[in-house]
Amino acid sequence: MKLLTYQTKDSEPRLGFLHDNLVVDMEDFGNISNFPLPDNMLDLIDLGFEVISEITDLIAETRAVDFEEISIPIEEATFLAPIPKPRKNIIGIGLNYTEHVAESARSLDTSKELPQQPVIFSKPPTTVTATNTNVLLNRKLTNQLDWEVELAVVIGKKGKYVPKSDALDYVFGYTIINDISARDCRRSGQWIVSKGQDTFAPMGPILVTKDEIENPHNLNLSLTVNGIEKQSSNTKFMLFNINDLIEDLSTVFTLEPGDIIATGTPAGVGAGRTPQEWLQEGDVVKCTVEKIGFIENTVKEI
Amino acid sequence: MKLLTYQTKDSEPRLGFLHDNLVVDMEDFGNISNFPLPDNMLDLIDLGFEVISEITDLIAETRAVDFEEISIPIEEATFLAPIPKPRKNIIGIGLNYTEHVAESARSLDTSKELPQQPVIFSKPPTTVTATNTNVLLNRKLTNQLDWEVELAVVIGKKGKYVPKSDALDYVFGYTIINDISARDCRRSGQWIVSKGQDTFAPMGPILVTKDEIENPHNLNLSLTVNGIEKQSSNTKFMLFNINDLIEDLSTVFTLEPGDIIATGTPAGVGAGRTPQEWLQEGDVVKCTVEKIGFIENTVKEI
Repeated sequence: MKLLTYQTKDSEPRLGFLHDNLVVDMEDFGNISNFPLPDNMLDLIDLGFEVISEITDLIAETRAVDFEEISIPIEEATFLAPIPKPRKNIIGIGLNYTEHVAESARSLDTSKELPQQPVIFSKPPTTVTATNTNVLLNRKLTNQLDWEVELAVVIGKKGKYVPKSDALDYVFGYTIINDISARDCRRSGQWIVSKGQDTFAPMGPILVTKDEIENPHNLNLSLTVNGIEKQSSNTKFMLFNINDLIEDLSTVFTLEPGDIIATGTPAGVGAGRTPQEWLQEGDVVKCTVEKIGFIENTVKEI
Repeated sequence: MKLLTYQTKDSEPRLGFLHDNLVVDMEDFGNISNFPLPDNMLDLIDLGFEVISEITDLIAETRAVDFEEISIPIEEATFLAPIPKPRKNIIGIGLNYTEHVAESARSLDTSKELPQQPVIFSKPPTTVTATNTNVLLNRKLTNQLDWEVELAVVIGKKGKYVPKSDALDYVFGYTIINDISARDCRRSGQWIVSKGQDTFAPMGPILVTKDEIENPHNLNLSLTVNGIEKQSSNTKFMLFNINDLIEDLSTVFTLEPGDIIATGTPAGVGAGRTPQEWLQEGDVVKCTVEKIGFIENTVKEI
């Protein structure tokens, strides 16, 4: 399923799904199907991944005409982030593509050695923003605003000490995150000010459930700034793949439904270019991940 | 007020307050006072700090006998963390006491220069644990488990670009956090694995509202391991005081009600001692902060 959180000019944020170029309201769909369904993404995830096949079956049994009352055309919906307000900081993975490790070592303060374990940081819920919103460039904090396209994994069930062989059982679905980074905001080596400013995690708009993605380790991902390609790679080049990450992360933290893991970015960030390039007022950044879609945001100086 | 989250053997977690050696249930107190009050701390904080003086007035008008039905003796309550499940990662401040900067530079990989800006990291909600619970020592991850007593600030209202002169208006109250740190778990300099493992944030048990603490910058804080004093200092020695921190943090992130800031630890951690000392199975760590109380936890190897 292609899930999303949407709003119309008259409504609060609502959970929906894409169907035949319509945005179908999830709670309303539950009502016509006599199968109670929630109005927000986190409550849906809490029902467990199994609910997705039940919903898929119900959709197959529903006549096209019955969708009319409970849906709107895509162009009438404003897409929010699929999880507009995560329950904890987004878990970020640094230095998870070989070429990006090399460019970071040249341009930033990181080691040129490949990490032996995943490098973990976090982005507060206040970083989350939707497609077609602004990424805020605060000149009092940074003059080195940078981009990072990433595949994001949404966790579907609680897990501790998850073996990598079972890891994908803990996944609910996938989305896109642009891990915006202010390179000059590291403090005593810590990345949270660099990665954690308001609007620094454009996410979504679509959360694709895992049943639609046969192999998350073979997805092209790319990023353009003002239409010019800056990053282009494939998730098969991750140093620590999703199974590795879930095994490692769940050894450190208990993973919980709704947790979001931004799995790292490939080479081509602004910091790694010669000369270096930084995002400026009005720049349009578009991140694309195969089978998920794209997210586009405009930089706004404040 | 001295607020807490408590449980009896028959109840789910409930919000309460201390009154005459009793734990009074907040929701029940609201019911007998015809003043609806919530059953959990975050909902109370969302009402705004002003509610505290209203509750205080109601308490003054309530006869002792009327508390009987809605309270239990302290010894019958199990104290949980005051905010058992924060809405985002705890905001941690590193290297915020001069002597601790020096001992960290000697023993860890940090600079001996005083930080020019607050050093920020985070601890996921899954780190939170109550007094009288175990801090888990996972030997697969660490052999260098360390302690850090800290004053924690709980934010009471949303704030962005808060000037330091107004910063305390944004505070709801204060509690204690033991910022447990596994010194050998840093990865590419990032502290979240070191600071973020399950049970690494014993918190509480009491959240003291700010009206009871005239000057948060003059509180003794100390820590013992098995009764032997390891840390002893005063919050007046913070490098960046609470006003500074709120101004700085709110420039980076939007602060929100229920946010928790662990304001840093003074000298005397295990890593800084000669020889170094690490927590072991069965060790009892007690953190005390003046006017707030103490929290005590036992290390358990897993």
